[in-house]
Order: sequence, then structure tokens, then C-alpha cells
Amino acid sequence: MDALDYRALASSPLFQGIGEEELQVLIEGKDCSIRRYHRDGIIAFRGDRYDELWILIDGRLRAEFHSHRGKVLKVESLKAHEVVASSVLFAEKPYFPVTLIAEEDSKICAISRNSVLKLLQKDERILRNYLRDTGDRLSLLAEKINMLQFTTIREKIAHYLLDEGQRQESDSPRLSYSMEVLSELFGVTRPALSREFSHLCEDGIIGREGHIVHFLDREALEEIIDSP
Amino acid sequence: MDALDYRALASSPLFQGIGEEELQVLIEGKDCSIRRYHRDGIIAFRGDRYDELWILIDGRLRAEFHSHRGKVLKVESLKAHEVVASSVLFAEKPYFPVTLIAEEDSKICAISRNSVLKLLQKDERILRNYLRDTGDRLSLLAEKINMLQFTTIREKIAHYLLDEGQRQESDSPRLSYSMEVLSELFGVTRPALSREFSHLCEDGIIGREGHIVHFLDREALEEIIDSP
Repeated sequence: MDALDYRALASSPLFQGIGEEELQVLIEGKDCSIRRYHRDGIIAFRGDRYDELWILIDGRLRAEFHSHRGKVLKVESLKAHEVVASSVLFAEKPYFPVTLIAEEDSKICAISRNSVLKLLQKDERILRNYLRDTGDRLSLLAEKINMLQFTTIREKIAHYLLDEGQRQESDSPRLSYSMEVLSELFGVTRPALSREFSHLCEDGIIGREGHIVHFLDREALEEIIDSP
Repeated sequence: MDALDYRALASSPLFQGIGEEELQVLIEGKDCSIRRYHRDGIIAFRGDRYDELWILIDGRLRAEFHSHRGKVLKVESLKAHEVVASSVLFAEKPYFPVTLIAEEDSKICAISRNSVLKLLQKDERILRNYLRDTGDRLSLLAEKINMLQFTTIREKIAHYLLDEGQRQESDSPRLSYSMEVLSELFGVTRPALSREFSHLCEDGIIGREGHIVHFLDREALEEIIDSP
């Protein structure tokens, strides 16, 4: 690993709060290697064992479900510095739940399970970061299942906004996910999502100011998901 | 907490490998309390903050999604000694992803987030157990999403069995989930699941010996999910 690799690694949410030099000292002597993958290459198949923690230090990955029938369902994108399948590493059956594909030429830092365990025990910040990462992923998956009860994008947006409003106890909640994550959560394209947000604004049901959404007509918003 | 509480707690997967007396020493001085809930009581609403780790030491809980339309979707059951929402505790937004209801009179041991963090750092066994628990839950959720592409129970069973066969590289795979967990995974009742397993046996497609399933007619099994 060279200096650029350490810089990229230090940008990972797993090492948030830890500088490049400190990270280098923490990582040195650990079982850790760099792998490169070409665009469109399959990095792991669903069902493959996962025995090392992978951190994407450059490029972009796509997680998909491939059915036995050949149907493909895109699950999520992973951007540079994200951690791959953190929660799977210590599962009783540590198998990839999805197939991983390189969307661009990509570079991964792989740290052995035992070395990860040592890092978690040695540094409270890494432990907290790791647990936050797995927790966030599970929340997103649970939300995804919850979303499946709705069919139209309009319904999904209405449900999500009312949920955020309830959670934040406000009629002007802040969107806690980016448009990119939201479109993945809803299983729709970004343009389609933006279009429906615009329609809701044009209809006078909501107003948007950056990440803040104002409920202009709460009743209409509730009717979207209340109609049979 | 009394001796019986410690005994129950020691049976939790979180403290696997740790005896009652050792556990008592580890827990003493930690921020930890016992709560009691009556049958059918709502323990937490979806969206409530989760700031303590809950371990069910007696009784039974049910996790549900309640839509704004009032539709109820049962997600899972939690039995005595199981850990509640381990992955959520350290998420950036530590909110319950589901509503929790007591199916029977229940007793919970609540340990504060900071005390959990201290236990994880102090004892490698607890750390491993905790990470395994969150990992197993995420795998199950991912599997659940994957299952949603299939409509009939027969398709779900066929897909699951072929998956297990592939993972175990065997035409006589071992079921890695109990019938109870499988029925939750498929979103069907246990009797309906058992009935369909029996049908597959009667049709000569599979044979069952306890937890082992033999593929008697692999082609027929594949056809179940290959048919349009």
C-alpha cells in the first residue's frame, strides 16, 4: 500500500476521525492487500464466501440479485471509500447476499477478518464507525422492504415524507437521504423520482427548499396513500 | 437483577460462551435494568428512538410494519434470550424500523449504549457474538427481499433449495433455517409451508430426512422457477 492508498482509506467512513498517518500506524503489520478490477468484471457472486473486509478505495461497484430465471434486480451502488458488506463478515454464514460488479475500473483494499477484529478492539472510533455502518445498512434494507407495499412513485414519496415528518415531529422535515439513495430505496430511476417530486410541487402539495420539504397540503399527501 | 435474570441473560446468543458467574462480574456496575410488559402491549413504535440494547429474557415479541393505511405486515418473532434490533443501536439514526408488540407477558433486560460499547471492547467473545447477531439479521433481511420476486410458496421453496444446494455444493443440502424461520422468510404460515414441502415430496421431486433435503428430480425443481 502506498501513500495514495492510505489517503483513500482514511476517507472511508470506517476510519472517520482518524488521520492518514495514524491510520498507517494502525494498519501496519495487519493482513491487508490491494486488488484491482476492470469495468464490468464480476467481483463476487452471490453465495461466495466473504472472509475479508473490502473497502472500495477507487471506482464504483453495483450490487445485484440474479434470479435463477436470469432476472436482474439492482440493489445498490457503492461509491469510492464505502465499505462492502460490513455486516456479512462476522455472520455465522458469511456469504455474499448479492452479486458484486465493477461499474468502473475499481480498486479494493482487503483486510482479513482477524485483522478487522483487532482494529475493532484496539480503537473505539473504528468500532463505533463499523457498528454505525452496519446499522445504517440494515435500516435502509428494512425501509426498502417497507416500501415494497407501495406501487407508484407518488405513493412511495408520500409515505416516505409522512414518515420523516412523524420522526422529526415537523411539517417541514429534512430529507435524510440523498436523491440517489432515495431512488435506490424506491427502486426507480433518479429522473423519474425528480419528476414526481416536481409534480407534487406543481400540485401545491409540497414545497421544496434544498433538503427541506414543506407540507403545504398535508391532507392531500395523506390521501395519496389512503386511497384504495 | 436477580440470579434467575443472570441465568436467562447467560442463555442469550450475545453472551454465548460466558458462564453466569462471569457474566455477573462483567455486567456489575453497568447501566442495566429490567422491564416488564403485558401481553399485547406495544413495546415500541416504528420510529421511536432506540438508545439501549434490549435482550428478551422471558416471553415473546412480534415485529410488525404498520402502513399509514393501517395494513399490518408481520416481520418476525423474537423468542426468549434473543437480542432486539442489535444493528440499530449504533446506526446514525437509531430508530426502530418496526413496531414491537409483546405476544406474551415479557421481560426485557435493557443495557445502555455506552455500557454495551464497554462490553464489546472488553470482551472479544461478546464482540464476536454481537457482530454475528447483526450479520445474521442482515443476511435474513437480504434473503427476504430476494424472495419477494417469487409469488407461490412452491417457487419460493424451489428457489431456496436450489440456493442452498449451490452454496453447499450438494444435491442433498441441509436446511440452514428452521421451518419457523423459513415460514417468516417466505411470508407464509407454517402449515402452508409444511403442506407444500409434502406436495414436493409426494410429486417425487424432493425427499426429506430431518433437516436434509434430497433433490430426487433436480430438473423438475428448476422448472418450478424457470416456467414463465
